[in-house]
Amino acid sequence: MSKKQPKLKIIPLGGLYEIGKNITVIEYNDEIIVIDCGLIFPEDEMLGIDVVIPDITYLLKNREKVKAIVLTHGHEDHVGALPYVLKKLNVPIYGTKLTLGLIENKLKEHDINNVKLNVVKPSQTIKTGVFTLEFIRTSHSIPDSVAIAINTPVGTILHTGDFKIDYTPINGEVMDFHKLAELGKKGVLVLLADSTNVERPGYTMSEKTVGDTFNDIFLTAKQRIIVATFASNIHRVQQIINSAVLFNRKVAVSGRSMVNVVNVATELGYLSIPEGTLIDINDIKKYPDNKIVVITTGSQGEPMSALARIASSDHKKMDLMPGDLVIISATPIPGNEKTVAKVINQLFKKGANVIYEALADVHVSGHACQEELKLMHSLLKPKFFIPVHGEYRHLKQHSKLAQELGMPKENIFVAENGSIIEFTKDKGSITGTVPAGNILVDGLGVGDVGNIVLRDRKHLSEDGLIVVVVTISKEDGSVVAGPDIVSRGFVYVRESEDLMEEAKKVVRNVLIECEKNHITDWATLKSSIRDALRNFLCEKIKRNPMILPIIMEV
Amino acid sequence: MSKKQPKLKIIPLGGLYEIGKNITVIEYNDEIIVIDCGLIFPEDEMLGIDVVIPDITYLLKNREKVKAIVLTHGHEDHVGALPYVLKKLNVPIYGTKLTLGLIENKLKEHDINNVKLNVVKPSQTIKTGVFTLEFIRTSHSIPDSVAIAINTPVGTILHTGDFKIDYTPINGEVMDFHKLAELGKKGVLVLLADSTNVERPGYTMSEKTVGDTFNDIFLTAKQRIIVATFASNIHRVQQIINSAVLFNRKVAVSGRSMVNVVNVATELGYLSIPEGTLIDINDIKKYPDNKIVVITTGSQGEPMSALARIASSDHKKMDLMPGDLVIISATPIPGNEKTVAKVINQLFKKGANVIYEALADVHVSGHACQEELKLMHSLLKPKFFIPVHGEYRHLKQHSKLAQELGMPKENIFVAENGSIIEFTKDKGSITGTVPAGNILVDGLGVGDVGNIVLRDRKHLSEDGLIVVVVTISKEDGSVVAGPDIVSRGFVYVRESEDLMEEAKKVVRNVLIECEKNHITDWATLKSSIRDALRNFLCEKIKRNPMILPIIMEV
Repeated sequence: MSKKQPKLKIIPLGGLYEIGKNITVIEYNDEIIVIDCGLIFPEDEMLGIDVVIPDITYLLKNREKVKAIVLTHGHEDHVGALPYVLKKLNVPIYGTKLTLGLIENKLKEHDINNVKLNVVKPSQTIKTGVFTLEFIRTSHSIPDSVAIAINTPVGTILHTGDFKIDYTPINGEVMDFHKLAELGKKGVLVLLADSTNVERPGYTMSEKTVGDTFNDIFLTAKQRIIVATFASNIHRVQQIINSAVLFNRKVAVSGRSMVNVVNVATELGYLSIPEGTLIDINDIKKYPDNKIVVITTGSQGEPMSALARIASSDHKKMDLMPGDLVIISATPIPGNEKTVAKVINQLFKKGANVIYEALADVHVSGHACQEELKLMHSLLKPKFFIPVHGEYRHLKQHSKLAQELGMPKENIFVAENGSIIEFTKDKGSITGTVPAGNILVDGLGVGDVGNIVLRDRKHLSEDGLIVVVVTISKEDGSVVAGPDIVSRGFVYVRESEDLMEEAKKVVRNVLIECEKNHITDWATLKSSIRDALRNFLCEKIKRNPMILPIIMEV
Repeated sequence: MSKKQPKLKIIPLGGLYEIGKNITVIEYNDEIIVIDCGLIFPEDEMLGIDVVIPDITYLLKNREKVKAIVLTHGHEDHVGALPYVLKKLNVPIYGTKLTLGLIENKLKEHDINNVKLNVVKPSQTIKTGVFTLEFIRTSHSIPDSVAIAINTPVGTILHTGDFKIDYTPINGEVMDFHKLAELGKKGVLVLLADSTNVERPGYTMSEKTVGDTFNDIFLTAKQRIIVATFASNIHRVQQIINSAVLFNRKVAVSGRSMVNVVNVATELGYLSIPEGTLIDINDIKKYPDNKIVVITTGSQGEPMSALARIASSDHKKMDLMPGDLVIISATPIPGNEKTVAKVINQLFKKGANVIYEALADVHVSGHACQEELKLMHSLLKPKFFIPVHGEYRHLKQHSKLAQELGMPKENIFVAENGSIIEFTKDKGSITGTVPAGNILVDGLGVGDVGNIVLRDRKHLSEDGLIVVVVTISKEDGSVVAGPDIVSRGFVYVRESEDLMEEAKKVVRNVLIECEKNHITDWATLKSSIRDALRNFLCEKIKRNPMILPIIMEV
């Protein structure tokens, strides 16, 4: 129809103004590929929500265009929404071996068996329709992470995925600087780059430095050592195992996801565990205390995790003993500070010795700090730049960093989820928006909890509720039974009998008044009860419970 | 009766295993003095709670013994419970001028007018019964902070209050090292010392360094400057004013507590503001943008604070303009990271330039780090030591620090709230406990919300509720009306009509079954409804709302 040259569109459906829920659409003519498909954990105000996934209305509307989902690495904020998305949009998946190994497990749990998982190797090139994809090895806090170069008719897009620069990675597989330099030389049209640590000056330390700290700690430990970290941080797990081997300790693994990941990673060759090192958690008592290391989940203080259970003497397979050494090899993710502190306090109270980030260098970040970001920009020399993977402040700082490196401000797009950013060979602009937002998952319900439900949950959580039930006569609207008042989350009923009696009286007066004035329509009746009760309680006790009048008719 | 020598008792009623709610009882024979009387802000799981105050059952039981409450400084975690406690136990208060100045305001708000507030000066000595109290100047993030030495017949107790060591304090009034050294020389029996920053090596920087940062920032600022900080951090406010004066800017103040504190502090001589510097917030538009500084509350991202209102364009007196410079001169208190981040993102989105701790040295702590604590211990050379003002991990680390300085472990008491720690001249031991704990304040209710109410609020917050109402006949127990089902915080009713219809059917079946089996007792009826509905919903949608069956009889 139109003879216009088709444009290249980049549409982030998630991952902007937030750290998580990463998903980006690359569109040219009638072809779409999607980079990553992550979830985000609910904000505090999303009460009762399990996880949050991106709104993929745009993809569903253009379902015949979508050729593939390509993945940068196996973290939940990049792959966690796949089980939900694939149920609605079954397309081939491309990713590295470990990434897909981890996903396979997840899909099985969700009873999804009909998805095509295509393993690619770093340095490999894949052609899908008009796009040619190159997977480029990077460093991150999970092995097998890649950046992805997408060659399009308009130019090359490079998406870094999550990365840091580690010149001495644990597995010896260094980031592919040469490929990045080569791309930069050939010319990169658009760079999308990780902004997580853009506020931090300098460099992120090498993962290897954590291993040195482990060795120092293991050297003087006299009893059992328990190390908590992210299950997916396989390099970290490898270093714990290395230190254990060095100091002749056996290793047991605890926590569902840790057991899963260790199995998958070992099977696929990402973990190297000398024979005889790994023992069953049930067998730890068969060895002297100074010959044991337990690797566990729970570094974020998650209440149901193995470490939290150990701390609260609720772990089925092991009891904490005074003198046990616990290392929390992680930083609390913002929002988790208090739960982590709680677990640390519990561990100390049980007589354990606890080492955490405040006390020793037992963790490094997986994301690039300012100087590393500058290297990435300098190698790639992109024409246009879209900072991704960050809250607004991070995107803004990343834009500033790019400008300091000489990029003109008008070539940088601090976009929003849903922004359509269109590119020609020498121009880029935000031309519109598509639907994008949060889909809340609660139990088996996907998207059935929204603002009204959340508002009610918040109200209930702060003030509880009062149910007022009245039975009235069908014939003349007179009160046949009640009012009965039931409350939950409001006050101790036993200690507040007088208050509840008075409240009943207030309702009774409303009913008498309404009868007197021949008010029988239920809406008015209910709102009269609600208003009178609310005023009474506000004055009496300065609280504002949800008031739920129910009228029955007989 | 008994001829035993009376013992000296120290009973912390709050402030241990927590940062906040500081209150310590010192008892000898039939005399008690209380040091501090603070509140703590509610934990996340204390849904709907406004503040938490200490359980003072022990003081009320011994009310005739209590001679005074003495205060170390004016922060909420040291004085905030006074309005609640004084209503039940009216005793004289001793504190420095600013501390009492701030409290006077608070008491007025609570309609408390009959309390004796006794101003003491640092270096002053007060005799109350058997105790002689010396107030010793310290440094902290509020002026007029003191340590308190309590001379008792058994020996001298020294309570540091909150402190840091600042050799160059803003007001020039340096901590009284000489007095502390003198006490140490004479002999201190028991030291109680602030443990907040015990995990941090080295020294806390001088407050003065923040002023240097302000000057650097003010030097290049081209538009309005808005600085958010704690209202009570009067030294900080003074430095903002100093920088404003240096760069010829007028100062306006926003936020209720900031206005209050600036007024009190100015009146009492703790803030020095050159004439003509302070302007009304309504007048800021009368001056060029580069001649304005606004000092505001909201450094913790509190949703109702002045800064949060500015960020969300909800402030009555000022609009944020692109290019405004906002300085957040504070660190998020653990738990507040996300609300602070939210405000920062909003400010950036409005086009402001935001400077916060991640980007510049715009804040220093008010608490002593390890080397400062060592100086305090070394000056005082106490025989016994009770670490206070910290979570368990802090108390434990502080105990370790004292041991490194040579104190025998058996002379250190890591106690709990409510522990009775008894001392003779040469022995100390924990001999028992008194009631201690959290009293929750919700609206006008003090202590009427407890675990059951909180458990219900939590349940409601996560899953919402379903109310099932049935009206049955008095005569034969047959169903006359209903079942009716009402839900809140559960699902969107409109989109879940089928589910609710099915749920009704489930209840109807239960009722039929019960009628068939002649089950008429209400408890069984209710629990049958609850069980059937819970199973149905769990299977159908994997959620577990609170189910509230109500039976009416006509």
